[in-house]
Amino acid sequence: MSGLNKYIETLNKLDFSKMYQNDFFLTWEKTDDELKAVFTVADALRHLREQNVSTKIFDSGLGISIFRDNSTRTRFSFASACNLLGLEVQDLDEGKSQIAHGETVRETANMVSFMADVVGIRDDMYIGKGNAYMHEVSEAVQEGNKEGVLEQRPTLVNLQCDIDHPTQAMADALALVHHFGGIENMKGKKIAMTWAYSPSYGKPLSVPQGIIGLMTRFGMDVVLAHPEGYEVMPEVEEVAKKNAAASGGSFKKVNSMAEAFKDADVVYPKSWAPFAAMEKRTNLYGENDFDGIKVLEKELLAQNANHKDWECTEELMKTTKDGKALYMHCLPADITGVSCKEGEVAASVFDRYRTPLYKEASYKPYIIAAMIFLAKVKDPQKTLAALEARGLERWMQK
Amino acid sequence: MSGLNKYIETLNKLDFSKMYQNDFFLTWEKTDDELKAVFTVADALRHLREQNVSTKIFDSGLGISIFRDNSTRTRFSFASACNLLGLEVQDLDEGKSQIAHGETVRETANMVSFMADVVGIRDDMYIGKGNAYMHEVSEAVQEGNKEGVLEQRPTLVNLQCDIDHPTQAMADALALVHHFGGIENMKGKKIAMTWAYSPSYGKPLSVPQGIIGLMTRFGMDVVLAHPEGYEVMPEVEEVAKKNAAASGGSFKKVNSMAEAFKDADVVYPKSWAPFAAMEKRTNLYGENDFDGIKVLEKELLAQNANHKDWECTEELMKTTKDGKALYMHCLPADITGVSCKEGEVAASVFDRYRTPLYKEASYKPYIIAAMIFLAKVKDPQKTLAALEARGLERWMQK
Amino acid sequence: MSGLNKYIETLNKLDFSKMYQNDFFLTWEKTDDELKAVFTVADALRHLREQNVSTKIFDSGLGISIFRDNSTRTRFSFASACNLLGLEVQDLDEGKSQIAHGETVRETANMVSFMADVVGIRDDMYIGKGNAYMHEVSEAVQEGNKEGVLEQRPTLVNLQCDIDHPTQAMADALALVHHFGGIENMKGKKIAMTWAYSPSYGKPLSVPQGIIGLMTRFGMDVVLAHPEGYEVMPEVEEVAKKNAAASGGSFKKVNSMAEAFKDADVVYPKSWAPFAAMEKRTNLYGENDFDGIKVLEKELLAQNANHKDWECTEELMKTTKDGKALYMHCLPADITGVSCKEGEVAASVFDRYRTPLYKEASYKPYIIAAMIFLAKVKDPQKTLAALEARGLERWMQK
Repeated sequence: MSGLNKYIETLNKLDFSKMYQNDFFLTWEKTDDELKAVFTVADALRHLREQNVSTKIFDSGLGISIFRDNSTRTRFSFASACNLLGLEVQDLDEGKSQIAHGETVRETANMVSFMADVVGIRDDMYIGKGNAYMHEVSEAVQEGNKEGVLEQRPTLVNLQCDIDHPTQAMADALALVHHFGGIENMKGKKIAMTWAYSPSYGKPLSVPQGIIGLMTRFGMDVVLAHPEGYEVMPEVEEVAKKNAAASGGSFKKVNSMAEAFKDADVVYPKSWAPFAAMEKRTNLYGENDFDGIKVLEKELLAQNANHKDWECTEELMKTTKDGKALYMHCLPADITGVSCKEGEVAASVFDRYRTPLYKEASYKPYIIAAMIFLAKVKDPQKTLAALEARGLERWMQK
Repeated sequence: MSGLNKYIETLNKLDFSKMYQNDFFLTWEKTDDELKAVFTVADALRHLREQNVSTKIFDSGLGISIFRDNSTRTRFSFASACNLLGLEVQDLDEGKSQIAHGETVRETANMVSFMADVVGIRDDMYIGKGNAYMHEVSEAVQEGNKEGVLEQRPTLVNLQCDIDHPTQAMADALALVHHFGGIENMKGKKIAMTWAYSPSYGKPLSVPQGIIGLMTRFGMDVVLAHPEGYEVMPEVEEVAKKNAAASGGSFKKVNSMAEAFKDADVVYPKSWAPFAAMEKRTNLYGENDFDGIKVLEKELLAQNANHKDWECTEELMKTTKDGKALYMHCLPADITGVSCKEGEVAASVFDRYRTPLYKEASYKPYIIAAMIFLAKVKDPQKTLAALEARGLERWMQK
Repeated sequence: MSGLNKYIETLNKLDFSKMYQNDFFLTWEKTDDELKAVFTVADALRHLREQNVSTKIFDSGLGISIFRDNSTRTRFSFASACNLLGLEVQDLDEGKSQIAHGETVRETANMVSFMADVVGIRDDMYIGKGNAYMHEVSEAVQEGNKEGVLEQRPTLVNLQCDIDHPTQAMADALALVHHFGGIENMKGKKIAMTWAYSPSYGKPLSVPQGIIGLMTRFGMDVVLAHPEGYEVMPEVEEVAKKNAAASGGSFKKVNSMAEAFKDADVVYPKSWAPFAAMEKRTNLYGENDFDGIKVLEKELLAQNANHKDWECTEELMKTTKDGKALYMHCLPADITGVSCKEGEVAASVFDRYRTPLYKEASYKPYIIAAMIFLAKVKDPQKTLAALEARGLERWMQK
């Protein structure tokens, strides 16, 4: 079996019917089959593109991007995914105050969606807000569609919220599927999701949360390591525990980078802010207490500085499985002596893993495209086959 | 008769030949037949999209948007309309100073239009400037086209100027056509275009002017209500009077919201700034008199505050025809107790009309697309039929 | 012979095989045949568009634009070129600091290029930096392509660097080809590339350098005129000398506008900053010496003011060949009494040449499209013929 059929055969064995006309918020709201369907469609779309077959399922239509934070990587990944499927991206750049209220969310969501087939939102800054905002938008456009305001129901894709970063975690997971040669081979592999020192503060929690919430699905031995005081959201730890129990993997918390790295097959050292501090900051913003925010920032930087030894060094890498663990990062990394004086990772380690890191990132546009595809296409297998049969060249040259 | 034929039959009875290769500035520069053609093509394009038929008449080409003001709704409507017809939007974000002079307008207009099939402009801030600027741009690109600089003549669409807001008023009118079940049923219906209190000041006059200048075309009884001192442009009042006389409708001015609402079939309560004050502000800007502008702002806010009783309340709504007038607004509205302490409309009134309000807005992309279509297509009936015959799916799914 | 065949026949006689899957940095890195191929494909694409034939060779794909400077003309030209070939433009708007370091360039270049078929960069501010940055980006994406990160190799198009402005110079040259009725007729024609006074300072050197580096290729008599102290990069003067020797033209430097204009067939009066001053400014920026920069700015403005007599007046124009030299400019020009009190050109001169100036600019989108086309298409002749045979309408109307 080869070519596109391989992917179609895989899809035939999975049940993902509930993804049609639905949203993608958190990976743990999706079944194993649904996650596998995303991986499979992502690979299938990449396969078709490599064969120079156009995968445009839309002849016109908009993909709305709402980024309540600066972003280059995710923005281009979303734009690439939309373009791959035939949607034109329109950015909504309203100030935060303008889209803060319930009434306004509902209204704006409808006003920008008359021709929107998908809405991608990144809103990871404030604990308790981002995911809730996405649900508000989704409900608003669903209601708009039911009431005849919108002729189609725009699909919502979570491009990073306060709880999860599903497009990142799924892209990372697909990179691991390919690294280990199949999703079944992830079972029993050890992944160390560990905190690392960074001279900046306030990095989002959604990546470590996304990783422990997703990698525990595949029977991996997931270790979360961080200094005391850098706890992630307790609810997500609970999710990881339950996942591990169900998948036959494990989830463990340690306060030592060395312990996490020991015999690991994969390491993911990355800075983040303590959940409790981010919650505090959210409240300070809510109260417009800018002096309080400044004080908090100073405290957090000082707290970070106590843990400069949390760096992914060559020495630590040697303690991993055969000294050859895969080093992962969502990028950009704080590289010691390159992007900062002291950072998350030694320059020589980062340098050795550059190509795998870039490949890891390269899955994201396809993951996003697959999420959209599965939400927009009633029979994905037949549609993939139809795209191949249509045989429209993506790049015409004689 | 059903489907697309209905629209083609309607178009067959209308004369709109002068719209081809032309611009759309003010509704009162267009004949009744031309306005009806816009309504009909808007409905036909919506019909085709609902049937999943692609309406792309352009395989490549640009739609240039020039917004000399922030705008979400109109920006997305223009982007949607362009996308629907196959044009890619490019925003021109020059500072105001850069495009202020005659020489520069002519040059910039040509420089951005080499591949432009349409130019959409919103410039509503300064009395006596916006519409004039649009004409400058239009003349520049027409000359460019004649001289062989531009291979096509970009169509200009007025996305809001100091005089009229034709895409808004036409979308509102099409909403009414559907509300009353036909353009002929608008005859004799009473519409109250009334001022309402808002805690902000300087809201454009183009909406009330657009409404009185357009709704008087269909034999409606149009009442313009505002406190003394909130006069709109006298020229537009003259237009409304003439229109009413010609269409068998009426145009009346009152200084009481209650009188305007009495037995109205439609109410449109909305804040705006006095014409004379906006004229003064334009002059102050021209003189760079920023202290003068601040003084004027304070005066205007104080003046507004004298009229907080101009609010669309439940009590007033009860006095309308059967207590069931259609409440209209161009959005966003200042909702009492929601978006501001005291505003244009009571929360319960707004809430009850949310769906019709969103639907009202949903006509705008199609109205803009129809304006472009009629300017770009020699035989719209044949082209609509050809689009249906081509049968290209907008959204391909098996 | 007529229509498209004319261009195909011309291409058949040229060798431009090395342009395939390659970049376009500097015109003097390209052979005469390669430059002629760009002209010919530009004309062929324009011809097809005039015949309403779609020239989209991409069904999806992105064109990334990186502008480290504000730009309207070049931005719209690049967007137009991408659109003409079927690519959607995505702008990368990172702050300068973010893309300053080697590691970051490599990473960002890959992160934005997963679906990128072309990357257009404008970076003309700092001497010794812009061109080098473009090479870094090109090498990064080539490596990314080799390593399997990127499925295609994005072509780099230099939209203006510190050394050359190839899309401008090539568009200017194509305007001259048409002005003189053939590239062979440029031989022996005198072009005066002269400095002119402007009340602003720090205008890039890339235009004069691009012009003397390119026009010397066609056997023209190129005269570079500027006041003492306004020298361009010595390396580029060397290029011009060598080109002139090889093409049978000439390259001469003078310190008098009058001498340059005397009997010229073409004049190109335009302000620029002295190379040495720009080099100094680059160093000051490198040292974050903002006080030093302010001092330098004052010095430069004072230096400029010594040469207000360097203006393209009617008197000077009369001294050109038959008093009818073609006046060229990359736009926008500083027009005396129009855009400034005293400037580069008299208003009456500029006014008389407006149409040729706009036409000159109109070649740029096609030049950029041709550069992309030749980099992306293995057999351009066959592909052009296939586009004509496909006969897809750009603008469908009945």
